[in-house]
Amino acid sequence: MQTPQKIAIVGSGLVGTLLAIYLKKKGHTVHVLDRSPDIRTVEFSGRSINLVMSNRGWKALENIGIEQEIQKIGIPVDKRAIHLQDGKLNYQYYGKDGEAIFSLSRGVLNRKMIDLAEQVGVEFKFQHKIWDVSLVDATLYVGETEQGDWQELKYDKVFGADGAFSRIRHRMQRQSMFDYTQEFMKLGYKELHIPANPDGTHKIDKNSLHIWPRGQFMLMALANLDGSFTCTLFMPFEGENSFQSLKEEKKLVDFFAKYFPDTKEVIPDLVEDFFKNPTSYLVMMKCFPWTYEDKVALIGDSAHAIVPFYGQGMNAGFEDITILAEMIAQYGDDWKTIFEEYQKERKPNADAIAELSRRNFVEMSTKTADEKFLLQKKIEKWFSDKHPDKWLPLYSRVTFSTHPYSEALALGDFQNKIMEEIMSIADIENKWDSEEVEKKMIFLLNEKETKE
Amino acid sequence: MQTPQKIAIVGSGLVGTLLAIYLKKKGHTVHVLDRSPDIRTVEFSGRSINLVMSNRGWKALENIGIEQEIQKIGIPVDKRAIHLQDGKLNYQYYGKDGEAIFSLSRGVLNRKMIDLAEQVGVEFKFQHKIWDVSLVDATLYVGETEQGDWQELKYDKVFGADGAFSRIRHRMQRQSMFDYTQEFMKLGYKELHIPANPDGTHKIDKNSLHIWPRGQFMLMALANLDGSFTCTLFMPFEGENSFQSLKEEKKLVDFFAKYFPDTKEVIPDLVEDFFKNPTSYLVMMKCFPWTYEDKVALIGDSAHAIVPFYGQGMNAGFEDITILAEMIAQYGDDWKTIFEEYQKERKPNADAIAELSRRNFVEMSTKTADEKFLLQKKIEKWFSDKHPDKWLPLYSRVTFSTHPYSEALALGDFQNKIMEEIMSIADIENKWDSEEVEKKMIFLLNEKETKE
Repeated sequence: MQTPQKIAIVGSGLVGTLLAIYLKKKGHTVHVLDRSPDIRTVEFSGRSINLVMSNRGWKALENIGIEQEIQKIGIPVDKRAIHLQDGKLNYQYYGKDGEAIFSLSRGVLNRKMIDLAEQVGVEFKFQHKIWDVSLVDATLYVGETEQGDWQELKYDKVFGADGAFSRIRHRMQRQSMFDYTQEFMKLGYKELHIPANPDGTHKIDKNSLHIWPRGQFMLMALANLDGSFTCTLFMPFEGENSFQSLKEEKKLVDFFAKYFPDTKEVIPDLVEDFFKNPTSYLVMMKCFPWTYEDKVALIGDSAHAIVPFYGQGMNAGFEDITILAEMIAQYGDDWKTIFEEYQKERKPNADAIAELSRRNFVEMSTKTADEKFLLQKKIEKWFSDKHPDKWLPLYSRVTFSTHPYSEALALGDFQNKIMEEIMSIADIENKWDSEEVEKKMIFLLNEKETKE
Repeated sequence: MQTPQKIAIVGSGLVGTLLAIYLKKKGHTVHVLDRSPDIRTVEFSGRSINLVMSNRGWKALENIGIEQEIQKIGIPVDKRAIHLQDGKLNYQYYGKDGEAIFSLSRGVLNRKMIDLAEQVGVEFKFQHKIWDVSLVDATLYVGETEQGDWQELKYDKVFGADGAFSRIRHRMQRQSMFDYTQEFMKLGYKELHIPANPDGTHKIDKNSLHIWPRGQFMLMALANLDGSFTCTLFMPFEGENSFQSLKEEKKLVDFFAKYFPDTKEVIPDLVEDFFKNPTSYLVMMKCFPWTYEDKVALIGDSAHAIVPFYGQGMNAGFEDITILAEMIAQYGDDWKTIFEEYQKERKPNADAIAELSRRNFVEMSTKTADEKFLLQKKIEKWFSDKHPDKWLPLYSRVTFSTHPYSEALALGDFQNKIMEEIMSIADIENKWDSEEVEKKMIFLLNEKETKE
């Protein structure tokens, strides 16, 4: 049991709110400050990618005792539905029978979690603009404008859960020995919308993550509870097929007719949505350290913003809380050690999921359209079903396990080398589930494991 | 001839001041603003590494017509003097006969350049603290404190020459699509001092860059005009031999007696200097873009801060001005194109010298103590003298040429592959200058060039 602290969490997003529930339940006084209005009082912005919750996220919710509440607002998704340009539809199951990720609307989830936080006694201070933080004494400076008068709010601890453009990190960045990287992708995204049928049912299979993989760009759709889908178009800002090249209505309509012909019936408001919704940026951000003495810690996107292609951004942020809770259980009132061990444990894993997420764009946008790639995944699944002790496919390790991301990255590379050799076997298409292939995989596993 | 502009340069360091002279001579109104007092009125800080001017720097000075003034305050350095731990002293010449870099004291050089700038009519505004910049209209906000009243200073163009922690860049960084990286080295440095002899002569050879290479750490010394040397100890912050491990006088003295025995006579104030002078950080910084429309441009360290191990920081910054001047000559009043072409041309070269500089620590601190490495350099020099059309050693290409850094990086890697094969020839020590080796090098050059 820790000595009760007065704790500020900056940012009322998903990670900040979950952390607030956890810390409040541990007996601390918890204030959540956010520069924006209460998300429960505003309309969503039309720039959100639907979230998927997978095992790491569920584990954090379970530890804090709110997983059942959240399951009610999620839709299980057990496969990719791959829409090829010629109209063909392929399915690729994610894991074993019953293994699924859960599609959630960011806004719906965030509202629900703020409700739950208030129920346990977390105090929210919306429309509180934080302009600076004093790291040595965990003091926040709040005011209407950056140049106006500021109010001092003193805490025992401050958590920066204020996202990729964190103000808390901004202050830490101006210290010596603070490593920092921000990198914008050449790729942006835009939200589009598939409405529900008049009877409230979904127009396409709600238990699939739908992808239209087209190489340099792709469209994606994830189901919402109300029967609609949130679609996301990922595309370069500039170049032949780009946001810049689609400035006119006719070009846009022709582009969709050519590349996504089967969306014509299901995205009725394409033109309106496309020109109304903003084109959003994707940024990767890394930094270190994440903490300052026993006073300040970064968590979630403020410490490690990644691209969304592995569906792990929220899950990684929630897992930060799991690890932080482990350190709290272990080190009690020694917050300096708690923060040190937390960042030491999480940093390599945050770097690993950043790398895996970056790579997964190519998998989603290009490889899922490739028969050979689908065969490779089929072989891996077949072999893994037969030898679960020998092979856990990379996607499953990231998504359906809580093994560290850094292990997943290393093992994924190792497995890929083996699969390269397997895929080069002559006539593999016809003997992919043969004893020969099985034996070869076991041989390669043993051989390579001995060497490494 | 350009239409005269009202130009602010933020930062009165070497690059800012040289840029000011150039722009003033081109007919513009030029203000240089700096948050610090006039360097001509203050003592130097004891945290400076001596500079070396090489061809890229000289070329910029020559273009602007001040190279002769600067030559008077520099000392030619034509070789490394490598002090081994056993007392042995090796010399390694940098280039061909007469090719030398020039040792300069940062403070002396900076004062001289500010004098020269004032003589041509540049206006300096010292102790002007800039807190923000409006990019769209090149307006600077100046005031005593960040929270106090600010004065607006409107210009036509603003150049950020305000170093690795640039305020101007800081504003640009908060825009979307601004890529940024800062990385602190695990290695710090501390200034030490070899005083002049009573008669004003140098205690050790003034025409050498002295290195005491010891693997993880090294000592370096460069001559000043007054007979003294500025020494720099580069060492990890933490670990066995580190700044952290040398907190007591006895440990420091023992450490120097063990690793740098021949410095005992020449660094009399070791203990005092070591504990008085700060331990400084080394940071690498990269960013992009460097410019905003036709209004704002970064130059020198504010755009590309590198580690000092190739002696190219100032030279790279001065070369920015050479390239900017070329773009101005070409595009006249079209500042938007000038800025675009300037950053396009310089960015890959800044990245290349960053990489070369990072690598050169290992060359200086470790390889220069290795007989095999010295032999390799000797072979390269011998071959280059015989076939100057076929081989320009990497160091010479970086230091004594103005070929782009990015070419130097690529060609250096190419040459290294060849030298690996040459150094693996049996008994190379005894036949390094034989016809066999010469022929083999020509063969490898032809073979690899054809392949690549």
